[in-house]
Amino acid sequence: MPNVIIDGPPIKDLEVKRILVKEVTDAMEKAYKIPRQAYVVVIKENLPENVGVGGELIIDREKK
Amino acid sequence: MPNVIIDGPPIKDLEVKRILVKEVTDAMEKAYKIPRQAYVVVIKENLPENVGVGGELIIDREKK
Amino acid sequence: MPNVIIDGPPIKDLEVKRILVKEVTDAMEKAYKIPRQAYVVVIKENLPENVGVGGELIIDREKK
Amino acid sequence: MPNVIIDGPPIKDLEVKRILVKEVTDAMEKAYKIPRQAYVVVIKENLPENVGVGGELIIDREKK
Amino acid sequence: MPNVIIDGPPIKDLEVKRILVKEVTDAMEKAYKIPRQAYVVVIKENLPENVGVGGELIIDREKK
Amino acid sequence: MPNVIIDGPPIKDLEVKRILVKEVTDAMEKAYKIPRQAYVVVIKENLPENVGVGGELIIDREKK
Repeated sequence: MPNVIIDGPPIKDLEVKRILVKEVTDAMEKAYKIPRQAYVVVIKENLPENVGVGGELIIDREKK
Repeated sequence: MPNVIIDGPPIKDLEVKRILVKEVTDAMEKAYKIPRQAYVVVIKENLPENVGVGGELIIDREKK
Repeated sequence: MPNVIIDGPPIKDLEVKRILVKEVTDAMEKAYKIPRQAYVVVIKENLPENVGVGGELIIDREKK
Repeated sequence: MPNVIIDGPPIKDLEVKRILVKEVTDAMEKAYKIPRQAYVVVIKENLPENVGVGGELIIDREKK
Repeated sequence: MPNVIIDGPPIKDLEVKRILVKEVTDAMEKAYKIPRQAYVVVIKENLPENVGVGGELIIDREKK
Repeated sequence: MPNVIIDGPPIKDLEVKRILVKEVTDAMEKAYKIPRQAYVVVIKENLPENVGVGGELIIDREKK
């Protein structure tokens, strides 16, 4: 703790995940001033058929 | 925001997801009176071996 | 289960919460076809100083 | 409700999940004194490329 | 990580929280075999007007 | 969406929250390449009596 859960679309490139976790941890370390080892970041990858924005599935919005 | 996370069993039919997201968004729009585009609904599909009810895995309950 | 967590701004009126929970449960019952008693809806009320949209706190956006 | 969400690495052995759900439910039942049937435990299995600890992905830490 | 989020009603007695966190951690340590220091348990206390079961707020069910 | 939930200790200084939300959003924008307005960050402030690390409440660890 502190813990972060990120809910977003899938990320294909491992390097992008690597940088995302590093930078989010940097931001938290500045805010909480707790030893770096304590921060946990979990990336959740959600399919476009499982996310709705404005009442509409992303998979349907992408088709338009 | 507002954001909703729904944790349930898998939903096979895309049309069911479509209606679920629409109706949950309708309900939120009535409650929060924020522009519709702001609502996000995320459906999480959980395997019956990863959910316990009453201390027992769903996969074990289904066998009974 | 299924469980829903709604993260939104505070809701002052109890009747609004009552309707929100009822309608979200109605929507889930249609989707999952599980006995009504199984559905849990948790409303989380977040202060405008604890939510950022587009990188900016809501409390700051409201001042503009 | 009460509901528990456990975010951890994958668990290969079903028996381990079975015991985990049982024991976490036992602990909650002692704390909340609500009928056992009400407790829901959801296990989330996260890949080592989707979890960062101390700003570093687990998949990278394991290589070291 | 592993992390646990428990969503339940308020717990008045600190000793109850102490035991809950200890026992849930014991259960996870047995399952994941990761050093004990890594486990985080977060207890969320929810008001009965913010939780719905079976489509009805707990605050309304308690009155019956 | 993408959405972030940060579970940490209370943050007293509004400016710290402001910077945290901005920097976490910056990191996500780089990763997901979605218009900035779509990112939501929710900060959850947890009391030291509601968080356990290594099976022990933070409120008890701080006393040591």
